[in-house]
Amino acid sequence: MTMSSTLQTAQINLPKDFIDLGRGDPGLDLLPLGLLRDAAAHRLNHSDNEILQYGAERGDGYFRDALAKFLSIRYGFSVSRDDLFVTSGISAGLDLLCTLLTKPGDTILVEEPSYFLALQIFADHGLNVVSINTDESGLVVEDLIRALKESRPKFLYVIPTFQNPSGHTLSQERRDEIVNLAKKHGFLILADEVYHLLSYTQTPPVSFGTYIDSEHVVSLGSFSKILAPGLRLGWLHAHPALIQRLSTCGLLNSGGGMNPFTSAVVRSLIEKGDLDKNIAHLIDMYSKRMQSTERSLRTHLRAAEFSTPHGGYFFWVRLPGINAGELREKAQEYRVGLRQGLLFSSQNGLSDFFRLSISFYDVNEIEQGIMRLKKCIDEK
Amino acid sequence: MTMSSTLQTAQINLPKDFIDLGRGDPGLDLLPLGLLRDAAAHRLNHSDNEILQYGAERGDGYFRDALAKFLSIRYGFSVSRDDLFVTSGISAGLDLLCTLLTKPGDTILVEEPSYFLALQIFADHGLNVVSINTDESGLVVEDLIRALKESRPKFLYVIPTFQNPSGHTLSQERRDEIVNLAKKHGFLILADEVYHLLSYTQTPPVSFGTYIDSEHVVSLGSFSKILAPGLRLGWLHAHPALIQRLSTCGLLNSGGGMNPFTSAVVRSLIEKGDLDKNIAHLIDMYSKRMQSTERSLRTHLRAAEFSTPHGGYFFWVRLPGINAGELREKAQEYRVGLRQGLLFSSQNGLSDFFRLSISFYDVNEIEQGIMRLKKCIDEK
Repeated sequence: MTMSSTLQTAQINLPKDFIDLGRGDPGLDLLPLGLLRDAAAHRLNHSDNEILQYGAERGDGYFRDALAKFLSIRYGFSVSRDDLFVTSGISAGLDLLCTLLTKPGDTILVEEPSYFLALQIFADHGLNVVSINTDESGLVVEDLIRALKESRPKFLYVIPTFQNPSGHTLSQERRDEIVNLAKKHGFLILADEVYHLLSYTQTPPVSFGTYIDSEHVVSLGSFSKILAPGLRLGWLHAHPALIQRLSTCGLLNSGGGMNPFTSAVVRSLIEKGDLDKNIAHLIDMYSKRMQSTERSLRTHLRAAEFSTPHGGYFFWVRLPGINAGELREKAQEYRVGLRQGLLFSSQNGLSDFFRLSISFYDVNEIEQGIMRLKKCIDEK
Repeated sequence: MTMSSTLQTAQINLPKDFIDLGRGDPGLDLLPLGLLRDAAAHRLNHSDNEILQYGAERGDGYFRDALAKFLSIRYGFSVSRDDLFVTSGISAGLDLLCTLLTKPGDTILVEEPSYFLALQIFADHGLNVVSINTDESGLVVEDLIRALKESRPKFLYVIPTFQNPSGHTLSQERRDEIVNLAKKHGFLILADEVYHLLSYTQTPPVSFGTYIDSEHVVSLGSFSKILAPGLRLGWLHAHPALIQRLSTCGLLNSGGGMNPFTSAVVRSLIEKGDLDKNIAHLIDMYSKRMQSTERSLRTHLRAAEFSTPHGGYFFWVRLPGINAGELREKAQEYRVGLRQGLLFSSQNGLSDFFRLSISFYDVNEIEQGIMRLKKCIDEK
């Protein structure tokens, strides 16, 4: 007899009384099923059935047009639909770029620390990952210059704004320097800007999309954090020449555009102004959680070193002298979770750091989780 | 000033008076927008918002359960949800398998002829393609044995039922032999069964899913031909060990399951019995087109050599002495299209063959197209 898998819908499935402060997905209360219901009803009543056909490789033109208008206002510079390519999320965009632009053994550069699941995508493609140190202003340019003396990377993967896991934002000055280095050394910058639109206390520098004319920059955006991850919908913002290259690959020629049905529904949602409303609501909720989490950390975890980020999801906490991997194991008994720093390191380091997220739990649950963590540390 | 791209929704966008008999996508009249509208309304009114969360890597358990029940009845043997992995279409499934199971330079085997856009996916992964001849009963086993003496392929890509482009079906006897060879030589069989459920005049052998216990067979299925390609929804049917391998890759760990939102909607459609109804309607329409196209070919293209397939989309037509590539060029003037045999060849051959499809146009348009083709040939 075969064991049957559980009838699970979501990726993460925890016992009700467990508080996993490490998880970086939006809470169920922040997923706007009603907006999607209205948008689906609108689109499926008002479209012809062309949206069910194999879609244009770069994505539905009407959807790209709505997205371009939305981004132009949000970014503060003009975004053309010709510079947008629809993906089924940033992970799928990264995967496609790896398939088409790299081969196993090629070197790529990432930040130290960086998003651990992007690192796994690069590993699946057999890439040789070299990491560049970061500080409170993001990637350290001197370290990048040093790395460029020793290797010819295919691309640099960077999360410039409200970074995962550090929460830091790359300064404007460094952005300019890094783009110049990309032009000089002939590598591509893949800027994962998934948190860019979630700013609470300080407006970050403009999107990396501002640099696409250089032909050395791709900005990757997503609806996962501003609407819902289950949609599997995102975009690449890049020079039309690169978009043309992506649009003529086997995957897209065979299957057509990545997500025509869902993008048609989301087009209605954008055009109705509901995406703007949803982001305003998220910013309101998340900025309150950010303040409250800061207070809880200062109150309950006095030894914790961290700076409160100006946007995004993550607190990057250091507890000097404490191994966060061991803490994570022990914390299971206290029904609280975290993500140890080691996960985000390409240098087998950062062992006394861990990541906490404000995305999933409300302010009371987060405080409850932090108090459990304190108890775990005290009794250690 | 930059030229702006057209506001195009679908992948193929032809002038109204052009009849492209080569195109292999379903006609707009066969795309059931109403069924999707009802299913979306049902699911979005009755689900909680967990369907908007990052989804379980192998796909929503409830959707896999509904799909397993549907396939068990259709296939005539028991399919478990544990043997199913949800994809965003067969192309995405093939792409993932190539990323995880191959590296550039690896040899794979395909049929001669084979689906040209799958060949492009393999080329994007740098694979070395060796083709095996086929006849009216599919892959020629002696040729496969010969190829296995000279190479150790990672996999054999085969379209066993109502093949694209030949329309032929692999015999039961040869299926058994090929599976035995896969076990003996340690390669995987990737069976693209996209046309399996569209049988009109003869029931094909059971799905390759019947062989998954061998751990050497993956059956790839899709909603593109039985519901709508714009959904980007399909499945892999394979041994749980392989599904486990796929489910732990970077792409899935990062983004979660491939298409949670759409699969939740389609779950309602399956559970309501609407998928069965839709397939019955398609079989009714397509079988009439098949008969009528056969008549038109016999009436207007007397020199054409072909056998009428028992299911699927394609007539594979030979016009001895005529170069189908040149015919295709000339036929543009007559506002009629076809796909020349060369496209489907890995041996730079099949130049006097071409593919006609019954999927997009109704019986009158198909006859009109064939008459245009006749005129083009006569005036050549």
